[in-house]
Amino acid sequence: MPQPLTPQPIAAHPDRLFPADPGVRRIARSLHSRVEGLPIISPHGHVDAAVLEQNHPFPDPAALLVTPDHYVTRVIHAGGVPLDQLGLGGASGLGGADADSRAIWRNFCTAWPLFEGTASGYWLRQEFEHVFGLREEPSAENADRIYDAISAKLEEPGFLPRQLFKEFNIEVLATTDDPLDALESHEALADDPAFAGRVLPTFRPDQYLNIAHPQWQANVERLIASAGDGASGYAGYLAALEGRRRYFVEHGAVSADHGVRTPATLKLDAAEAGRLFERARAGKASAEDRDVFEAHMIYQMARMSVEDGLVMTLHPGSYRNHHGPTFEAYGADTGHDIPFAVNYTEAVRPLLQDFGTAKDFHLVLFTLDETVFSRELAPLAGFYPSVYIGAPWWFLDAPDAMLRFRSAVTETAGFSRSSGFIDDTRAFCSIPARHDTSRRIEASFLARLVAEHRISEDRAHELIVDVVDAAPRRVFKL
Amino acid sequence: MPQPLTPQPIAAHPDRLFPADPGVRRIARSLHSRVEGLPIISPHGHVDAAVLEQNHPFPDPAALLVTPDHYVTRVIHAGGVPLDQLGLGGASGLGGADADSRAIWRNFCTAWPLFEGTASGYWLRQEFEHVFGLREEPSAENADRIYDAISAKLEEPGFLPRQLFKEFNIEVLATTDDPLDALESHEALADDPAFAGRVLPTFRPDQYLNIAHPQWQANVERLIASAGDGASGYAGYLAALEGRRRYFVEHGAVSADHGVRTPATLKLDAAEAGRLFERARAGKASAEDRDVFEAHMIYQMARMSVEDGLVMTLHPGSYRNHHGPTFEAYGADTGHDIPFAVNYTEAVRPLLQDFGTAKDFHLVLFTLDETVFSRELAPLAGFYPSVYIGAPWWFLDAPDAMLRFRSAVTETAGFSRSSGFIDDTRAFCSIPARHDTSRRIEASFLARLVAEHRISEDRAHELIVDVVDAAPRRVFKL
Amino acid sequence: MPQPLTPQPIAAHPDRLFPADPGVRRIARSLHSRVEGLPIISPHGHVDAAVLEQNHPFPDPAALLVTPDHYVTRVIHAGGVPLDQLGLGGASGLGGADADSRAIWRNFCTAWPLFEGTASGYWLRQEFEHVFGLREEPSAENADRIYDAISAKLEEPGFLPRQLFKEFNIEVLATTDDPLDALESHEALADDPAFAGRVLPTFRPDQYLNIAHPQWQANVERLIASAGDGASGYAGYLAALEGRRRYFVEHGAVSADHGVRTPATLKLDAAEAGRLFERARAGKASAEDRDVFEAHMIYQMARMSVEDGLVMTLHPGSYRNHHGPTFEAYGADTGHDIPFAVNYTEAVRPLLQDFGTAKDFHLVLFTLDETVFSRELAPLAGFYPSVYIGAPWWFLDAPDAMLRFRSAVTETAGFSRSSGFIDDTRAFCSIPARHDTSRRIEASFLARLVAEHRISEDRAHELIVDVVDAAPRRVFKL
Repeated sequence: MPQPLTPQPIAAHPDRLFPADPGVRRIARSLHSRVEGLPIISPHGHVDAAVLEQNHPFPDPAALLVTPDHYVTRVIHAGGVPLDQLGLGGASGLGGADADSRAIWRNFCTAWPLFEGTASGYWLRQEFEHVFGLREEPSAENADRIYDAISAKLEEPGFLPRQLFKEFNIEVLATTDDPLDALESHEALADDPAFAGRVLPTFRPDQYLNIAHPQWQANVERLIASAGDGASGYAGYLAALEGRRRYFVEHGAVSADHGVRTPATLKLDAAEAGRLFERARAGKASAEDRDVFEAHMIYQMARMSVEDGLVMTLHPGSYRNHHGPTFEAYGADTGHDIPFAVNYTEAVRPLLQDFGTAKDFHLVLFTLDETVFSRELAPLAGFYPSVYIGAPWWFLDAPDAMLRFRSAVTETAGFSRSSGFIDDTRAFCSIPARHDTSRRIEASFLARLVAEHRISEDRAHELIVDVVDAAPRRVFKL
Repeated sequence: MPQPLTPQPIAAHPDRLFPADPGVRRIARSLHSRVEGLPIISPHGHVDAAVLEQNHPFPDPAALLVTPDHYVTRVIHAGGVPLDQLGLGGASGLGGADADSRAIWRNFCTAWPLFEGTASGYWLRQEFEHVFGLREEPSAENADRIYDAISAKLEEPGFLPRQLFKEFNIEVLATTDDPLDALESHEALADDPAFAGRVLPTFRPDQYLNIAHPQWQANVERLIASAGDGASGYAGYLAALEGRRRYFVEHGAVSADHGVRTPATLKLDAAEAGRLFERARAGKASAEDRDVFEAHMIYQMARMSVEDGLVMTLHPGSYRNHHGPTFEAYGADTGHDIPFAVNYTEAVRPLLQDFGTAKDFHLVLFTLDETVFSRELAPLAGFYPSVYIGAPWWFLDAPDAMLRFRSAVTETAGFSRSSGFIDDTRAFCSIPARHDTSRRIEASFLARLVAEHRISEDRAHELIVDVVDAAPRRVFKL
Repeated sequence: MPQPLTPQPIAAHPDRLFPADPGVRRIARSLHSRVEGLPIISPHGHVDAAVLEQNHPFPDPAALLVTPDHYVTRVIHAGGVPLDQLGLGGASGLGGADADSRAIWRNFCTAWPLFEGTASGYWLRQEFEHVFGLREEPSAENADRIYDAISAKLEEPGFLPRQLFKEFNIEVLATTDDPLDALESHEALADDPAFAGRVLPTFRPDQYLNIAHPQWQANVERLIASAGDGASGYAGYLAALEGRRRYFVEHGAVSADHGVRTPATLKLDAAEAGRLFERARAGKASAEDRDVFEAHMIYQMARMSVEDGLVMTLHPGSYRNHHGPTFEAYGADTGHDIPFAVNYTEAVRPLLQDFGTAKDFHLVLFTLDETVFSRELAPLAGFYPSVYIGAPWWFLDAPDAMLRFRSAVTETAGFSRSSGFIDDTRAFCSIPARHDTSRRIEASFLARLVAEHRISEDRAHELIVDVVDAAPRRVFKL
């Protein structure tokens, strides 16, 4: 790990992230001012609805900001700190008592210089200043002082989840949910006249579609049983999925999300799909069966989306749990999901053959492989009325990467074919910083086009409102 | 589709596309002024020679600017307008009578905001102002007014194809032609003392090389019959191709173009190639046979280029007619050719083994997959005297993409190893806007290198003339 | 080849390579001034230790600057000059006598305009001015004059290799060496009290691991014999490799380098590996055996690195000797190694499963395929404490490419996870220009982040020292 750097005051400059050229910056500032105050629309993310329903105070700083955020723990781990020193791994780790949280927090503060230049570091910096009112950046020296300051804040009524939700100006927040989730928290929030926000569930059936998942067989049994109509086998399975989607629609869901290995899609006839399903249920499916069945089920999900109107989002291309020993010790989502190359053009063709021009079907394609932006996603979204280009995701949700994205897709697909910003986060307090980052980058990109006389400044003012506010409402049918 | 935006006056600013920094812009402006008035050299495109030979007035605005241009129709289609509402699909569509053309034109004008930020939108904007003298941009409100204004222009003598050819300052325009085309229009133009331009045919034998093409067998019979020398079988086929190439050379052709699936090349011995050929002629070729035979025929085309001097251009990497139902209803070239990843390094090796250093052989490699620019094309062109890097093509023929191209290839291959600009268009009236865009981007790129003290300003003035004017003449042997 | 351009005075402007914006440039200049005078750390390169040990005057200009540098000869070759006119190919070429060297030099000077915009041209330009004090750039007209000027310099005592080593302010220079090299030059230099620099060997066992190498069998016999302990077979082979690594460690080596086709890694059990080894020794290995065995031996090299502490560097993804006829006539390293696409995520997993978190293990991953920077290398280095991202290499060791690299990796992995600059050169006199280029680009990148208020200027001053000086020491255990 590098030597600790001199602590710097946190400077959240009003011109942060804008281009350096004074003329372009003036335009960017003006464009950003147009959208700065607009409400946050978050159509895809991982905040737990129960947090808002229960409205308990957030736990200590480490449990809020470090341990559960694999964007943060992976960087410190790369710097040489074992994950159990960051609170992962339950009893064997440091999580739990106050003393342990302080130790985790000190590890985080000591590692702070590693975050310079990263998107996570930038969000945390904004969060510290704008949410918690800190005036200095973390360091080994001030770790305890900052811990106490944040802890004190977390006990104030203004820092309860619902108060922050309002403070953050969130209008819509979508969660990500198991198909068999009863959605009680969502229901309670919707029924609560004291809570004005919209907290929407998202149907995420990965563990019911991927037959290699250790729980797949058990999940499928529970799924079919949940339908309670006596139907069984492949037909019952499909019907039960349709039923649960309806349940989600009735509870406000607007989209179904799919975390798949590759973007492969495939249409099987019912007999063949049924045989595959039964083979899997009997525990006799091969690796190839797994790929074929998942590709087919993605096709089926598209078919259901055409029927029930749920927007379909696809998140492929991540090698999950890359480091076996870490997965065994600490479980999934611990920072070692590593992207690989994907190819969309051939993979989504079977699906698009049948549904590419289907009325009101929306298919949002995300990628961790930047090469497909100009090569595949912009051309696909530039022809198919159903296809939208997903906003830069995960490792690509960062200032430079977002500028590369806009540059890569706009000349082919314009501004109307992308999804609008998606924060995709489980870090509730980072939501304002993430959306503000995106708005500043949109302003920066448009400002350059204005300065280069490629669009007029008036038109850019209309476009930034469309991109920030109208696009997510339109694409996610909000 | 997004809400219509406030109509903006079309501002074709003299500094358009130049970098925002005032110092760099000053240099770019000066560099551009050096090449602004140079004649247009267009060594690869899809304008029909008969249009210039016959010199009839262009049809109505929709039939000129919308219906035949899949760059334009695909964007409107993605916005939710079916292709038959844009004049595609013959009798079932809107094409034909004046009333229908107006409806198509209104659809286009209403969709105008979708083009903001796209290359097509930028070209159309230039075209409207510089060719047709319009002062306002299209909108649902002014659609009929603009239709009438353009229609009136099209009846003026100054808007006849040959007059525009002269007005556009085109010196060389290459068309793309079927090997059995008699090239009568080219001959007539060459023989007409009243027409000063050079309109050159290009030999494009895809449908005679790709045995999966529905017309391949019939094409091959016609090809062999055309030779009229009694030779048949594989040897006759090769001889007939050689004969037609000679015919093209005699009619002024300087290049042979190949729209292939992948850049694969392969040398088969004559016996094996002959067996494959006969299997294909008997309708018994497999999908693998198709790939092997095409790869071999590309090798043969290189061999013939070495012999007859035709520059060889390769355009791989597009999944043609991606959406089956659209292809069935509207045919090819209707906006759903979608790129995919290509790999040149291994694919072109068999060809380069034998011809990579052949005297006067020119092989121009194009790509829709930007990743090969720095990884493969610049290193190949930076060693093989025969290899030139094709200008950014199709989806990549756009300001930001062209800057990325120059940045990706120049540090390895310098300025002398790329093809010079190729407009590749069937939209005749867009030719000046496309070439001017390229010249502005070349000026912008060079201006940055000057400002960063990487080349001298005097040298940049020499280089931009070389890149814009001398390179296409040199690479295409004009 | 293009027409010769007007000769320009060489202007090595003090602001060269800095961004054009005056505000950003001011910051870049200030950052660069912080590191401009720091010693050069060169942990990976191809200079011959004997050159420094023997300290003979360098030969003539062509033999110093043209013939041995395939970065230079390939560009002139692409311009149409056969390699034998550049001194390659021994007796059949121009190398040797003074008259021939002058002819080679004239070919180089005549081709000078081809280097405009290339990284090689930029380095040569710096070298001519800063090392040789030339005031004009090469041209056909002044070729002989420059030849004489450089020749005269090369006879001055100040131009002896050791004097230049000191002049260049090199602190550490690593060479690349055959495992059976006795390292006598390294030993002599280390023992010489008059020589203050560190010249370190690097263990490079490619030709002992790749069973397809023509010398593999002979190499293995010599390797096993060198151990002299009577052990033989696969176990003896491993033991001998371990022994030679120890020998290198004892002679100051800090790293082992691997030029592999792909980044594949694989763990075989000893019995299986042994069978493969014997099959190869018997000359009966298949192409697949070659891949499997190399992947396994890369795994073994990682295992040995964990044990003996040598930093492991991986250089995959180049199709070596792409043009067969050139290889046959001129041998390897003659300018036609062409990169291709690589995928690291799956390939290095077997190795990282076992050693990814091993104490003090350092694995530096290089690439010629830029797409893996953001997609794979930054995520890998952003989790695994062992993984470092190799600096932009070979074709990517150029100003724009280095900026793209920083933009691609920093937002995910920060500044602490990259290797620091590697010059990887056999062109001794280009070393200062290469390191200065890198320092200017680091300054330019950081200056932009400062100007965009993403990091503070004080922090940037700390980071540039870390990146330029501390990182290579830390990563290469210097």
